[in-house]
Amino acid sequence: MEYTVGYYDVAVVGAGHAGCEAALAAARMGMKTVVFAINLDSIALMPCNPSIGGPAKGHLVREIDALGGEMAINTDKTFIQIRMLNTGKGPAVRALRAQADKKAYQFSMKYTLERQQNLDVVQEEVVRILEEGGKVRGVVTRTGGIFYSKAVILTTGVYLRGRIIIGDVNYSGGPNGLFPASQLSKSLEDLGFELGRFKTGTPPRVHKHSIDFSKMIEQPGDEVIIPFSYTSGEIKRDQVSCWLTYSNKHTHEIIMENLYRAPLYTGDIQGVGPRYCPSIEVKVVNFKEKASHQIFIEPEGINTNEMYIQGMSTSLPADVQIKMLRTIKGLENARIMRYGYAIEYDYVIPTQLSLSLETRKIKGLYMAGQINGTSGYEEAAAQGLIAGINAALMIKEKEPVILKRSDAYIGVLIDDLITKGITEPYRMLTSRAEYRLLLRHDNADLRLTEIGHEVGLINDKRYEKTLKKKQMIQEEIERLRSVKITPTEENNRALEEMETAPINTPFTLEDLLKRPELDYEKLKILDKNRPELPQDVIDQVEIMISYDGYIKRQIDQVESFKKLENKRIPENIDYDRIYGLRTEARERLKKVMPGSVGQASRISGVNPADISILLIYLEQQKRKKAHG
Amino acid sequence: MEYTVGYYDVAVVGAGHAGCEAALAAARMGMKTVVFAINLDSIALMPCNPSIGGPAKGHLVREIDALGGEMAINTDKTFIQIRMLNTGKGPAVRALRAQADKKAYQFSMKYTLERQQNLDVVQEEVVRILEEGGKVRGVVTRTGGIFYSKAVILTTGVYLRGRIIIGDVNYSGGPNGLFPASQLSKSLEDLGFELGRFKTGTPPRVHKHSIDFSKMIEQPGDEVIIPFSYTSGEIKRDQVSCWLTYSNKHTHEIIMENLYRAPLYTGDIQGVGPRYCPSIEVKVVNFKEKASHQIFIEPEGINTNEMYIQGMSTSLPADVQIKMLRTIKGLENARIMRYGYAIEYDYVIPTQLSLSLETRKIKGLYMAGQINGTSGYEEAAAQGLIAGINAALMIKEKEPVILKRSDAYIGVLIDDLITKGITEPYRMLTSRAEYRLLLRHDNADLRLTEIGHEVGLINDKRYEKTLKKKQMIQEEIERLRSVKITPTEENNRALEEMETAPINTPFTLEDLLKRPELDYEKLKILDKNRPELPQDVIDQVEIMISYDGYIKRQIDQVESFKKLENKRIPENIDYDRIYGLRTEARERLKKVMPGSVGQASRISGVNPADISILLIYLEQQKRKKAHG
Ligand SMILES: Cc1cc2nc3c(=O)[nH]c(=O)nc-3n(C[C@H](O)[C@H](O)[C@H](O)COP(=O)(O)OP(=O)(O)OC[C@H]3O[C@@H](n4cnc5c(N)ncnc54)[C@H](O)[C@@H]3O)c2cc1C
Ligand SMILES: Cc1cc2nc3c(=O)[nH]c(=O)nc-3n(C[C@H](O)[C@H](O)[C@H](O)COP(=O)(O)OP(=O)(O)OC[C@H]3O[C@@H](n4cnc5c(N)ncnc54)[C@H](O)[C@@H]3O)c2cc1C
Repeated sequence: MEYTVGYYDVAVVGAGHAGCEAALAAARMGMKTVVFAINLDSIALMPCNPSIGGPAKGHLVREIDALGGEMAINTDKTFIQIRMLNTGKGPAVRALRAQADKKAYQFSMKYTLERQQNLDVVQEEVVRILEEGGKVRGVVTRTGGIFYSKAVILTTGVYLRGRIIIGDVNYSGGPNGLFPASQLSKSLEDLGFELGRFKTGTPPRVHKHSIDFSKMIEQPGDEVIIPFSYTSGEIKRDQVSCWLTYSNKHTHEIIMENLYRAPLYTGDIQGVGPRYCPSIEVKVVNFKEKASHQIFIEPEGINTNEMYIQGMSTSLPADVQIKMLRTIKGLENARIMRYGYAIEYDYVIPTQLSLSLETRKIKGLYMAGQINGTSGYEEAAAQGLIAGINAALMIKEKEPVILKRSDAYIGVLIDDLITKGITEPYRMLTSRAEYRLLLRHDNADLRLTEIGHEVGLINDKRYEKTLKKKQMIQEEIERLRSVKITPTEENNRALEEMETAPINTPFTLEDLLKRPELDYEKLKILDKNRPELPQDVIDQVEIMISYDGYIKRQIDQVESFKKLENKRIPENIDYDRIYGLRTEARERLKKVMPGSVGQASRISGVNPADISILLIYLEQQKRKKAHG
Repeated sequence: MEYTVGYYDVAVVGAGHAGCEAALAAARMGMKTVVFAINLDSIALMPCNPSIGGPAKGHLVREIDALGGEMAINTDKTFIQIRMLNTGKGPAVRALRAQADKKAYQFSMKYTLERQQNLDVVQEEVVRILEEGGKVRGVVTRTGGIFYSKAVILTTGVYLRGRIIIGDVNYSGGPNGLFPASQLSKSLEDLGFELGRFKTGTPPRVHKHSIDFSKMIEQPGDEVIIPFSYTSGEIKRDQVSCWLTYSNKHTHEIIMENLYRAPLYTGDIQGVGPRYCPSIEVKVVNFKEKASHQIFIEPEGINTNEMYIQGMSTSLPADVQIKMLRTIKGLENARIMRYGYAIEYDYVIPTQLSLSLETRKIKGLYMAGQINGTSGYEEAAAQGLIAGINAALMIKEKEPVILKRSDAYIGVLIDDLITKGITEPYRMLTSRAEYRLLLRHDNADLRLTEIGHEVGLINDKRYEKTLKKKQMIQEEIERLRSVKITPTEENNRALEEMETAPINTPFTLEDLLKRPELDYEKLKILDKNRPELPQDVIDQVEIMISYDGYIKRQIDQVESFKKLENKRIPENIDYDRIYGLRTEARERLKKVMPGSVGQASRISGVNPADISILLIYLEQQKRKKAHG
């Protein structure tokens, strides 16, 4: 029997990393919201790494924070180690990475949902989407409950028709011993959506006391903690270490010997796995020349002895897992507490969405997270936040937030999914961002707080703080540009002490700061009237001046990129009427229905000649309209 | 493919309340032990009430503590409220009851297991018991892992062929959205065990912010905290309240109207439910005359807004759950976070065990907890502890610990299960204990620490502390018995002030203490040379003196009880050769194979005449042996 439970603005199906952000954003924007999980104990679960951030992913977390999302705040509350990566490299690739206490992360996020006004948290499996005349109407749960809503956001992660595989054992299941969602895929197919099948995997968990850390390399946390969230302030906390060891020839031999029992090679796994996060068996097969692979040992929390064996994701049979682990230095006596496994699941081909993350088929239906074919907590959270914002904006009859590739990694992520489409689980990488010197993790607040404020997720106080910061940076750059250091004997002596060349004409402080051997701190001695500035302002000033040339070049590139991006394609364009378009390009364009010429140009299968034809056509149409 | 994982002394299948105690006891007694859970996140899960203790159950917890178990310690670590119940009634029925932080309880227990020496904690479903020549050899897991062991303890709780029922929705599943154990039942049947089917249920969980507490009666915790464990010392902690409200005519009407959809009445549930913990629909049907039932609102933890609705256990459809809740004062706007449900599961008819909890069919195979047909965390933990101890003792080739009905509630519990057998889920009740004035929760340490020490679970220091306490009690009682208060004017004035009758002959302090209006504290003024004694000693002295008459009578009863109990029945007795035994009695005796005449006398279907015949037969045999 079906029965009405209530009327909502937004219904979010799933409370993983995507669902939590979506639900919080919608509720905080004043929408009456309900969020579902098959099991409330799985809210914000990290079924794999107990870690948040890292290159590109750390950028996403900072961007989520700047837009008013929760992931950074929740990570800061619950991390047990944090490190700034790539400090020796350029600012574009520096990134934060935290080890979270897995359980604490979950419960803290769950409690945040529970305390959020306008938000109902319900344990129920959604089995059907209600639709009427191309518009979403709500969802139906397994017990027959109807939740009517103006928007529905699907964030079902790895649960749709989930199947667990460990060697020759396999059964239908979700991650972490939870139930899968067996029925919703059918409803999506009935609505005309095209689904695909991906797979991902996780390594075994090993008991801490069975590991010999003396044979491994310790990786402690940073002494000075830089938090993820711009709101966190100073954090002091005892941290735990991770440990580095390596696989070896012997490990690889055992894998090769047992390859005939690996589901990935026996055909038991059909879903496509993530290229950038392969299982150990795939690494060994695909990189035969490598004699060893890095293995990181990461604690799953403060009050547990479970240790995560990063780099050993596998679906090999349990006995092989034991054998191969025990070949590794420090793991000779490893006792496995949970075996690694692979999981196969349905995803929705993301080219069926528009850049707002709304499906093109059904108005009010949004999708975010692993259901769109991505992999990773941060990727999921980023999409969830955008979907939540856009569902709320749609209900408020406002334009959606669409971040450009030049605005944010989030923009790159969503554009990649929707425009380029995917053939394997998609993971964010620094290399995917064209303008990565502009999209730094350290300036996400400067880039995005305004948007977060505009949609109502960032309060005035925080927004004004960011404006103030922007202003201080600008003023300080201008000051450095204007202050001239004259070639006095005293000044040159000071420069000499800094081990840099003396000057014989006046130099601005900016000029000096550009010298690689100098930095803001060192120049203090020459800079008598320097104002007292916060460290984050100084950091920005330094980066912007040191990388000035590169940054300017990227800004120029962004300008020409934006030109094409701003050439809008009308929603009702009929590609069949464009003479001269190649059939492949026509089909691809019809599938993606890009919103701009820029977007069209990134569709795989659409080449520059096609774009020229499209541009001519659009020009003609414009003229016709002007004349008509 | 099957593969050998390792060789153990004891394998414990299940890490619920029974499994945790069993595994810890065995490991602490020096056994190399492995404990399995289908999901490590379910260790020590409380799928129902977030509470430990209460009448009779609280006694079990204290007894577990006195024997060296973990439940009391873990409860003390994680309770968020604690109360002494029935303080107005006699000492036999007083009991502690704690609200636990559900998650904290679990993780604390999990971490205790993880840190225990000799103990491996493994996430794996056991699918088969290995047996050879009537002896257990180990277990086989779902991935094919063979864990050889000298003893196996099954503590599978409600998971065997678990089936979840909510109205007309039902599916195979374990509690709390976890997977059931689908295969092990078959292995037990193959080994010749007789299984039965029981059911239990749980109420919905409701969001705190949707409850109007101003319409309910507050139940705060005790101001002075008395902990569960004798080892806990003083505890100071902020506590949270529970709340009392009532169902009403309207609630009951809704239930009656929808009874045709209740699985308990449609026949969808076949398992027998617990009489002492019925669902609300059963209460309404069976107690038509009652206009209302108590409903307690209990927090599930400190950092969650989930509230447990005690008294509303139900498997009615979800829509009915919403409707009926909202008729209740303070729950008018209740928002359900998780629906109530029933669960059906297989249990093993416990008369197939002996009092050591070893199965009679297979040597080395033990069973404990809900698998034996009991219900309740404490009942499970108590059995788990005994099974763990006895498995270890068996391996050490020592006699098992068998607690008598006069020793402990645990003795009553196990004797009831094994000797009387059960027809519904068994729950511990004060009324089941014949000698309940002796088996108080306050003297569990005095009764049982010695046994805990003997088996090696209680260290010397703690044992000596208990001996010392015993001695202090004894000495103080003797002192009170010997100190005479003479009928001086001063003394009589003091007595008058205490509002008790004056004396005209010398009275001992013991005599005075027996007066109901007097207590140890009050008598201080007459008792010049009173030694400084700890409160728990004083409490014992007071109880033992005040209830002296009753206690003596119970001790006498125990003596005659013990006579029959000490009449052992040889293991190889052939009931078919006892002339004159009624067929029913013969069959029942053959089924239970009691160890003593006392035990035989409690078997249902065996009457006093049968016992006389048995006694005569045993006497003849003895004589024959002596002469033979
Ligand atoms: C075994 C495993 C290994 C992984 N390895 C990696 C890795 O190495 N690197 C990496 O970056 N990422 C990895 N991931 C991916 C990462 O866990 C996910 O990308 C991320 O959690 C996705 O977040 P999400 O919010 O999209 O979905 P999830 O976190 O999967 O959450 C989905 C939510 O939806 C709910 N739900 C699903 N269906 C329904 C329904 N019908 N009704 C109601 N609720 C529903 C679930 O209860 C859950 O709350 C791995 C995942 C798994 C399972
Ligand atoms: C819905 C519900 C309502 C309840 N209501 C009440 C109530 O109102 N009052 C009350 O007193 N009690 C109630 N109970 C009962 C109480 O929860 C149990 O009595 C108690 O938890 C039993 O403890 P246990 O250790 O025997 O088993 P459980 O706590 O059930 O633990 C069983 C353990 O065994 C593991 N396991 C099972 N099979 C396998 C296998 N094949 N291989 C490996 N591991 C396995 C599981 O993973 C789990 O760790 C309820 C239980 C449920 C589920």
